[in-house]
Amino acid sequence: MKLLAVLKCLSNCTSDSWDIADRVYECPHCGSLLDIVHPLEQLKSQPRLFWKNNFKARRLSFEQNDQSGVWRYREFVIPQLRSSDIVTLGEGNSPCVTTAGLKDYFKIDDIVIKLCGNNYTGSFKDLGMTVLVSVVRHAINAGKNIQAVGCASTGDTSAALAAYSAAAQVPSVILLPKNKISKAQLIQPIASGANVIALDTDFDGCMEIIQRLADSGIIYLANSKNALRIEGQKTIAFELFEQLDDKAPDWIVIPSGNLGNSYAIYKGFKLLFELGMIKKLPRLLLAQAEQANPLYLAYKNKLNTIEPVKAKSTLATAIQIGNPVSAKRALLALKETNGIVEQVSEQGLCDAAASIDKLGLYVCPHTAIALSAAKAAREKDIIRQSDSVVVISTANALKFTEFKVNYHTEKIKDINHSYTGSLTELPADYDKILKHIEKK
Amino acid sequence: MKLLAVLKCLSNCTSDSWDIADRVYECPHCGSLLDIVHPLEQLKSQPRLFWKNNFKARRLSFEQNDQSGVWRYREFVIPQLRSSDIVTLGEGNSPCVTTAGLKDYFKIDDIVIKLCGNNYTGSFKDLGMTVLVSVVRHAINAGKNIQAVGCASTGDTSAALAAYSAAAQVPSVILLPKNKISKAQLIQPIASGANVIALDTDFDGCMEIIQRLADSGIIYLANSKNALRIEGQKTIAFELFEQLDDKAPDWIVIPSGNLGNSYAIYKGFKLLFELGMIKKLPRLLLAQAEQANPLYLAYKNKLNTIEPVKAKSTLATAIQIGNPVSAKRALLALKETNGIVEQVSEQGLCDAAASIDKLGLYVCPHTAIALSAAKAAREKDIIRQSDSVVVISTANALKFTEFKVNYHTEKIKDINHSYTGSLTELPADYDKILKHIEKK
Repeated sequence: MKLLAVLKCLSNCTSDSWDIADRVYECPHCGSLLDIVHPLEQLKSQPRLFWKNNFKARRLSFEQNDQSGVWRYREFVIPQLRSSDIVTLGEGNSPCVTTAGLKDYFKIDDIVIKLCGNNYTGSFKDLGMTVLVSVVRHAINAGKNIQAVGCASTGDTSAALAAYSAAAQVPSVILLPKNKISKAQLIQPIASGANVIALDTDFDGCMEIIQRLADSGIIYLANSKNALRIEGQKTIAFELFEQLDDKAPDWIVIPSGNLGNSYAIYKGFKLLFELGMIKKLPRLLLAQAEQANPLYLAYKNKLNTIEPVKAKSTLATAIQIGNPVSAKRALLALKETNGIVEQVSEQGLCDAAASIDKLGLYVCPHTAIALSAAKAAREKDIIRQSDSVVVISTANALKFTEFKVNYHTEKIKDINHSYTGSLTELPADYDKILKHIEKK
Repeated sequence: MKLLAVLKCLSNCTSDSWDIADRVYECPHCGSLLDIVHPLEQLKSQPRLFWKNNFKARRLSFEQNDQSGVWRYREFVIPQLRSSDIVTLGEGNSPCVTTAGLKDYFKIDDIVIKLCGNNYTGSFKDLGMTVLVSVVRHAINAGKNIQAVGCASTGDTSAALAAYSAAAQVPSVILLPKNKISKAQLIQPIASGANVIALDTDFDGCMEIIQRLADSGIIYLANSKNALRIEGQKTIAFELFEQLDDKAPDWIVIPSGNLGNSYAIYKGFKLLFELGMIKKLPRLLLAQAEQANPLYLAYKNKLNTIEPVKAKSTLATAIQIGNPVSAKRALLALKETNGIVEQVSEQGLCDAAASIDKLGLYVCPHTAIALSAAKAAREKDIIRQSDSVVVISTANALKFTEFKVNYHTEKIKDINHSYTGSLTELPADYDKILKHIEKK
């Protein structure tokens, strides 16, 4: 079966379509985002069990592309790529974990955290970047002239782009606002050999220049506007389906900033639904920081569009976004899944992170936003005790040591540090240590 | 089939055996380390394909314990545990990755890196800790009085113990040398709610006190002396067997310090060999830092024991060990696999880390030791171009941001920084940026 995915206007303003290797990032007619569209009728022509069994078989395969949690589902991702186009660093296959303490904390019988930070560069961004960079290699293999890939970024995106393009041996250009990010955030793309350029401007200034570079054909644009990344992130839904015994959960809780991931996970489940593999779509609970809450405001005020806000400073830095790129995509997902939006204060973020860490689960600030939102929805009985709930953990908390240290040393401004951990200094005296331990 | 694993003297001085839940950490007769022994004849009584198919079937299961890369192999780990004893955080299932650049760099056609840092707390230690903490829960469920688990540690071990014991709701005690470790290393166990005690002594002083606390029955000892941890780490071999199309590779390259992991991976392959599942054992290449090389010296001088050395400062902090606990275990593994030992200088470590990072693979300093050793063995043609080679990556490089930053800012003393990455500062001027990109 020859399958072909193409780019189409997300707003359906035209029946035009574009090849995945075309350098088109928005609809030339209406300026809307684009979306990858799959040949649904062809996919449907297979018996329902066909896809399920196909993907299961690949989980037992030793081929590198089959072992990827993205490319195992290649017919649902970008079917026309050849095996030799694919650039994989073993992404996906992130575990779903739970503990007895977690269930007690939420009073939810069936709650798991899907650890999407268990990816090569430490965040779910790898899922999208393997797709984008593989398509770039596909285009280069087909004779297209792509000299470099590029993005404006301050964190996870640049790390993922730099690693995958290094693996593909394609040069990458990263534009960053000077002096606004830590050495720790800088060092991943620098180590990967990217051309990292710190500019005397803010993130929006970087974005403007990278867009011009893309428009002039100097670089291929890797920012989340590019619809290809959604196709990789979509596989979170396919993995969840398999991990949850070929079912969708009742709820998926997602930290929400630029909103690409929220749309991607919906899009994955939507495809499973259309193919008859699940009976209903999971409801989305999109969790925003109160400091950067344009989606929450749109939801609360029942608006059909998102009004940009000025994002205020939040500990959840990766979702500190006032004007989300994938606004339109996420509103569609919310509507179709009967979804809801919660906002979380900085205090709520800190309380959730510290409480959940003590249950054995070390979580990043963004995941803490999602966990706090889930707790709030449970307390209002919107999420019920018997519901099955998946919380998406977006990044490895090892990227956020500073946040953890500041919390446990009570250094975060205007926050009650109610759940700090224990560090005791003692002389190397057995009896004194024994006494301290017995007292605890 | 009722299978029972027991503790026995590693030196075979006695036919005595001990229950896995007994608090015995060394042979009471000869003082040797203990080893978990499995009922080999019973395992052998099954047809060869039985185990293979059994484990494959579990990779398609949605049960939490089956989804663990350790407990999927439970008959080969600790078979007598009940499902409810098991404390899992989705450990294992770490990918094997490779890139075209990596193969070119080594001039080896078939080389992969197994990313054991893709575990919950960011290192392979999780594999052993899930076993140790599950046995603790098994013992508690059986009515044994264990009030806390404990270890002396400065890094990965404490993070893993604290997370798994928090998940098991068992208190943990961590002894650390005061002022000798960074906040970043401290913060994982503190966040997990462990009783973290910083002592006015060095690591050996902490070890002495934790041993006394264990001997008095105050804590259950979780340091690597405890044979249970080997059983979890052993599963790296089982996963590799499956990932490499039901074969063993020709070579396994392992960063080697305390030597528990070197023994564990050998022990896993040895079991597969005894069951007829593989035809030959892989050869071990154990890689040591020149600054902490007691195994290398023993190997070079053809000794039957390891003479402790004073470990000097190395960037590979986790293997800065002069008197390895599992010395006897590792010598056995070397002998049985016709293994070799290489040592690597600090310069070699830095060169390997920076060169391999540029190929898209972000590696920790210990993994760099292994990679440099593999390169040396290849250059001497001990490893041949057509050999299949697996390099074990032990920890997530996100734990070593400081090392990366120091390298790329040329701040590591007495090191040539030959492969630093690129960071350029520019004004937000399109033409200047374009010129810079075109020049590169």
